[in-house]
Amino acid sequence: MLVPRVWSSVRPGLSRVLSRTLGGWPSGEGRRMDLSGIYPPVTTPFTATAEVDYGKLEENLHKLGTFPFRGFVLQGSNGEFPFLTSSERLEVVSHARQALPKDKLLLAGSGCESTQATVEMTVSMAQAGADAAMVVTPCYYRGRMSSAALIHHYTKVADLSPIPVVLYSVPANTGLDLPMDAVATLSQHPNIVGIKDSGGDVTRIGLIVHKTRSQDFQVLAGSAGFLLASYAIGAVGGVCALANVLGAQVCQLERLCLTGQWEDAQKLQHRLIEPNTAVTQRFGIPGLKKTMDWFGYYGGPCRSPLQELSPAQEEALRLDFASNGWL
Amino acid sequence: MLVPRVWSSVRPGLSRVLSRTLGGWPSGEGRRMDLSGIYPPVTTPFTATAEVDYGKLEENLHKLGTFPFRGFVLQGSNGEFPFLTSSERLEVVSHARQALPKDKLLLAGSGCESTQATVEMTVSMAQAGADAAMVVTPCYYRGRMSSAALIHHYTKVADLSPIPVVLYSVPANTGLDLPMDAVATLSQHPNIVGIKDSGGDVTRIGLIVHKTRSQDFQVLAGSAGFLLASYAIGAVGGVCALANVLGAQVCQLERLCLTGQWEDAQKLQHRLIEPNTAVTQRFGIPGLKKTMDWFGYYGGPCRSPLQELSPAQEEALRLDFASNGWL
Amino acid sequence: MLVPRVWSSVRPGLSRVLSRTLGGWPSGEGRRMDLSGIYPPVTTPFTATAEVDYGKLEENLHKLGTFPFRGFVLQGSNGEFPFLTSSERLEVVSHARQALPKDKLLLAGSGCESTQATVEMTVSMAQAGADAAMVVTPCYYRGRMSSAALIHHYTKVADLSPIPVVLYSVPANTGLDLPMDAVATLSQHPNIVGIKDSGGDVTRIGLIVHKTRSQDFQVLAGSAGFLLASYAIGAVGGVCALANVLGAQVCQLERLCLTGQWEDAQKLQHRLIEPNTAVTQRFGIPGLKKTMDWFGYYGGPCRSPLQELSPAQEEALRLDFASNGWL
Amino acid sequence: MLVPRVWSSVRPGLSRVLSRTLGGWPSGEGRRMDLSGIYPPVTTPFTATAEVDYGKLEENLHKLGTFPFRGFVLQGSNGEFPFLTSSERLEVVSHARQALPKDKLLLAGSGCESTQATVEMTVSMAQAGADAAMVVTPCYYRGRMSSAALIHHYTKVADLSPIPVVLYSVPANTGLDLPMDAVATLSQHPNIVGIKDSGGDVTRIGLIVHKTRSQDFQVLAGSAGFLLASYAIGAVGGVCALANVLGAQVCQLERLCLTGQWEDAQKLQHRLIEPNTAVTQRFGIPGLKKTMDWFGYYGGPCRSPLQELSPAQEEALRLDFASNGWL
Repeated sequence: MLVPRVWSSVRPGLSRVLSRTLGGWPSGEGRRMDLSGIYPPVTTPFTATAEVDYGKLEENLHKLGTFPFRGFVLQGSNGEFPFLTSSERLEVVSHARQALPKDKLLLAGSGCESTQATVEMTVSMAQAGADAAMVVTPCYYRGRMSSAALIHHYTKVADLSPIPVVLYSVPANTGLDLPMDAVATLSQHPNIVGIKDSGGDVTRIGLIVHKTRSQDFQVLAGSAGFLLASYAIGAVGGVCALANVLGAQVCQLERLCLTGQWEDAQKLQHRLIEPNTAVTQRFGIPGLKKTMDWFGYYGGPCRSPLQELSPAQEEALRLDFASNGWL
Repeated sequence: MLVPRVWSSVRPGLSRVLSRTLGGWPSGEGRRMDLSGIYPPVTTPFTATAEVDYGKLEENLHKLGTFPFRGFVLQGSNGEFPFLTSSERLEVVSHARQALPKDKLLLAGSGCESTQATVEMTVSMAQAGADAAMVVTPCYYRGRMSSAALIHHYTKVADLSPIPVVLYSVPANTGLDLPMDAVATLSQHPNIVGIKDSGGDVTRIGLIVHKTRSQDFQVLAGSAGFLLASYAIGAVGGVCALANVLGAQVCQLERLCLTGQWEDAQKLQHRLIEPNTAVTQRFGIPGLKKTMDWFGYYGGPCRSPLQELSPAQEEALRLDFASNGWL
Repeated sequence: MLVPRVWSSVRPGLSRVLSRTLGGWPSGEGRRMDLSGIYPPVTTPFTATAEVDYGKLEENLHKLGTFPFRGFVLQGSNGEFPFLTSSERLEVVSHARQALPKDKLLLAGSGCESTQATVEMTVSMAQAGADAAMVVTPCYYRGRMSSAALIHHYTKVADLSPIPVVLYSVPANTGLDLPMDAVATLSQHPNIVGIKDSGGDVTRIGLIVHKTRSQDFQVLAGSAGFLLASYAIGAVGGVCALANVLGAQVCQLERLCLTGQWEDAQKLQHRLIEPNTAVTQRFGIPGLKKTMDWFGYYGGPCRSPLQELSPAQEEALRLDFASNGWL
Repeated sequence: MLVPRVWSSVRPGLSRVLSRTLGGWPSGEGRRMDLSGIYPPVTTPFTATAEVDYGKLEENLHKLGTFPFRGFVLQGSNGEFPFLTSSERLEVVSHARQALPKDKLLLAGSGCESTQATVEMTVSMAQAGADAAMVVTPCYYRGRMSSAALIHHYTKVADLSPIPVVLYSVPANTGLDLPMDAVATLSQHPNIVGIKDSGGDVTRIGLIVHKTRSQDFQVLAGSAGFLLASYAIGAVGGVCALANVLGAQVCQLERLCLTGQWEDAQKLQHRLIEPNTAVTQRFGIPGLKKTMDWFGYYGGPCRSPLQELSPAQEEALRLDFASNGWL
C-alpha cells in the first residue's frame, strides 16, 4: 500500500489537536493519517444494574491489545452509543485512551443527529483523546438527507473538528447509504480521511476507491464478512465486530491479503462469514457480547431495549462458531 | 444525563402527576384519558443562529389556540426533537404548557433510544407539564427490535411514567412498524392509552381498533392524508402536521366525520391530501415551516442538517396548496 | 402467437365489442362502463394432475352467482394466470362467460410483460367474452418501468383494445406501484375506465379519485381489508379475494357503506380484516383455496411452485376465520 | 403449452442430451460440467417492427465469438425473454447454437413461472441445443416462494432436465433472493451444477462457495461490477452484460484474477464499474443496446414497454464509458 505505516506524532490526539487551526487545513503539505489495518469496534461493558463498567472495559482492551490491530473504534454502533449519555460517551473514550498503548489509533464515534451536536461531540472526543472521529450519517429524517444535506453536515463537522474525520455509512442501522457523489465530494476535504462502509456492497466500495483515487482517501470495510473482497478491491482495512472475539484470525486474514496469499485468505475468510453474520445481523450486540463471554472477555448485558438471547438463539450462535471450527 | 433529576417548581400538570401512584394503575375503575380530537405536532421555532425561540413558540401556540383542537403534540417528529438537547426538549414543553389553555391536552414526545433514558425523559416531561407522553419506537438497532423487546421497553416506560403513555409508530422515520401483536399486548397496560400511527395503512389501523376493542385503547391517525379513512375505521382523532397551517380545515374535516357528513368530508379530505403530502413526505419540516411563514405563523429555519427548500421546491410546495384552493 | 385472430361466434359482450371502432373512442358522448360493485377474483380450479378443471370452475361460478356481485374477475392474480398458457387463460374466460348470467360483468386479466403480447391477449379476451380487460403492470424490468414507459404501454393497449381497460396495480406481486402521475394521465384515455388498486394506501386512493374527478374514472379497492375506507374516500367498489368465501358478507359491507350505515359497516369491516389478510398476504392462494373447500366451493390444489399449507398454517388460517365468528 | 412436444431434427447439443437418461443422474462418478469462465448474456436483436432479427443475432455472435469466452447465455434477463413467445425463445437458442463454435457452452434461460412450464421449456431448450439451462426463480407470487417451494421447484426441474441446471438469482428483477439454505440443499442435486448470482452480495457468494465446498458446485458472478471480488472469494466465472461490449476487457480481468495479478486486476476492475452499472442498473437493456451500437454490434430497439434512452440519458451513458477511457 502507498500509505505510510509509521505515524510519528507524540501524544495521541493532543498534539494533533493543538497543531491545527480551526478552518485552516493543510491541503497537500503532507499525507493524511494512515488508517490502514484492523479495528475492533469495542463494546461497552455494563454492570448488572446497567452502569458502564470502566474496569471491565480496560480489561477487555488490555486483552485485545495483544493483537496487531491498527487501533480501536470506541462508541461505534457496537458500543451502544445511542444508549449512552454524552458524558458516558466521552468517559468511555477517555478511559480507553488511557488503557491503550499510544501507538494504537483510537477512532471515536461522535455522530449525533444535529450538525451542531456532532461538532460539539467531535471536539469533545478530540479532547478526550480520540485520534480521529468516526461520524455516522444522521438518519431520523432520512427522507430529507439528500447528498446536499449530508455534504453540508460533514463539511461543517470536518471544518471544525480538531482531528481527522472518518465518514461512517451503516445502512442496516440508519436506513440510508451515504450517496456515492457525496462521498466523492467529501473525499476532497483535507480533514476527511476515509470512510467506514458497512453496507457490504463491494461494487460500491470499489467505486469509492476508484473515484477518490487522487485524494488519498481510505476505505475501511465495516464488517469481517467482506473483508477479503474489500482488500481485493482496494480497501486498506476493516472495522470488524468479529475482531472482538476472533482477533487473531481477523488479523491473520489481513496479513494473508496484504502478502498476496489469496488462496489461504479465501479459506480463512470462508470460515469467518457465518460467525461474523452471527455477531452482527443475526444476533447483534447481544450475540457479540455472549460470544465475548465464551472467548474470555467480558461481554455482559446490553442496555434495554436490547434483550438477551433466548437459549435457542444462543445455541444457534454457538453452532455458527462451532461448525466453522472456532468452538 | 442532562435531564434534571429534581424538578421542584409547581407547574400545570403536576396535580395530575401527583394524583397517581407509581406502579399502581387503576385497571378498570374509570375511563382512561380521552384523547379524541385533532392535534397539531408543533414545530420548534429557531432563531437565525439556531437557538430555540421560545417567544415565537408562544406566539404560534396562541394563534393555534383559536382552533378547536383537543390538544397539541410537542416534541414529536415535526418538533425536530432529535436535534434538541434534553434540556431544550423539556424547556419547550414547559413553555408550551404555560402558553396553552389548561383544557388543551399537551402530549410530549419523550422517546429516546434506551429504555432508561426514555423513562427519565418521560418522568421529566410529566414534571414539565405534559398530560401524556408520546413515545416513539427506539430504532437504531431495528434489527433487534422484536415484539418482545418493544413490549419490554414500553411496559417499563408505562410502569414508571406518572402520566399516560401513547405509543408512536412512524416507519418513515424509524424504519420499523410497532408490530400488531405488540400493540395488542401493550393495549392491556393500564397506563397505555393509545397509539399514534403514522404509517398510513388503514387495514392495520382497523385491525388495531378491532383487536383492542375491549381495552378502551385509542388510535390517532398520524397524518391528515388518511384522517377521514381513519375515522371511518374507528380512529378517534389525528395528529396532523397540516393542522399547523390549515387548522380550521382539519378541524372541519373532523367535525364532518363525527357528524356523519361523509360526502362533504370526502370532498374536503381530497383537497387536503396534496398539501399534507407536501408538508410531510415530500418536503418535510422545511416545507412545513415555509408554509407556516405563508400562513401567518413563524416557521423559520430548521436546525442543520435539515436544509432550506430550493426555489424550485418552494414553487412546487406552493402549487400543492394553490391547486387545491388554499393559496 | 396462437391466439385466434378472428372470433366468429356471437357471445355475451360481443355487441359491446362491435359497437366500438378501433382508435375512435367516444370522449364524452356518454358515460363510461359502470364498474361499481363487488367482484370476486375467481380462482382457477385444478385437478389432482394440475389440469384446469372447467367443470369445477362452472360449479364455483354458479354458487358465486347467487350473491349480488357486480361481476367477476377472471385471470387476476388469484387466478394463477402466470401459471396458465395463453390458451388456458382464454379458455377459462370463455367458460366463465358461458357460466355467468349476462348481467354480470366479466373482467379478464390480460396483462403480459410485453406490450404486443398484452394487446393480443386483450383482443383475444374480448373475443372470449370479457366485458373489460384488467391489465396488470409489466414488472420484470421494474427498474425501467418509468411513468413514461407505463403510459406508453397502457395507451397502446387501450388504443387497440375493443373493450374498456382497467389499470391494475398490485405492488405485492409486481414490486411496483403504477405512479400517480401515470394514473392521472391514463385516466384521460377514453378507453381506460378505472383502476384496481391493491396496494392498500388509501391516501393514494383518495388522491387518485381527486386527481381524476373530471374524468369519470373509477377506483376499485383491490382487497377487502380496506374496502370500507376505500368507499369512504371515493372508490366505487372492490375486487376482493375474500368474496370467494364470504361473498354475502362482502356484499353486505358494500351495502352498509352505500347506504351510509357506517357504524355497522365498521363493525363488519373489522371482522373481515384478519380473514382477508389470511387469504391474501398471509397464506396466499393456497390459503384461499383451502378456505373455499371449507365453505362449500371447490378450492383444490394450486399449480406448482405454489405449495399446500402445512397443518400448522392450516390451523392458523382456521383461527383467523373462527376468532372472527366465521367458522 | 406452445412448446413443441416433439423435436425431430438433429442439432448440436443433441448428442449430449441423448447421452443422459432421465432420472438417472450420475452422483459422483465424474466431475460435473465445468462452467468456469466468462459469458456474455446475449441480447435479442429486433427489427424496426419488433420482430426477432436472427441474422443480426448471428452477426453479433460471430463477432463475440472472437473473444475467449467460456460460452454464452441466451435468453437471460438481458435477452428480453419475458417479451418473447415460447417459440421465439427456442428459435433464438437454436439459431445461436448453429452460429456458435461447438466448444462454446450455450446456457439457455428456461425459467417460467410454473414448474411444469419450466420443465417443458428446459426439455425443449435441451432439444434446441442448449448445453445447460439457467433457471430464474419464479417470482410473481414471491410472498409464497419459501425455501421449501423453491427447493421443490428446482428439484423437479433438475430431475426432469436432460441437461445440467444452473440456478439463477436476480433480485433486481425478481424481488427475491434464492435463500442460502435452498442453495445449499439444491447444490446436492446431481443435475444442478451451479448458480448465477446477480445480487452483488459477496458475503453471500463467499458463503455459497463455503457451504457447497463438498459438492463441486460452481458460482458465477452475475455482473462485471463485482467480478474481481467474486473471483477472490471463490467464484469460477461471470455472466456479464458488459462483456457484450467490452468483451476483451472482461476476459482480461478474468485472466488477471486467475493468474494472481491482483494489482492490475484491481485497476481494470475499477474502470469497469461505472460502464457496467450504466448498462445494467442505471440504463438497463436500452443502455446496453445503445452501447452495442457504438461498439460495432447490432443493438437496435427493445420491445415495448422498454423505451429508448432520452438524449440526456444517452449522454450520461456515453460519459460513463468515456470517463473511464473506453470511448
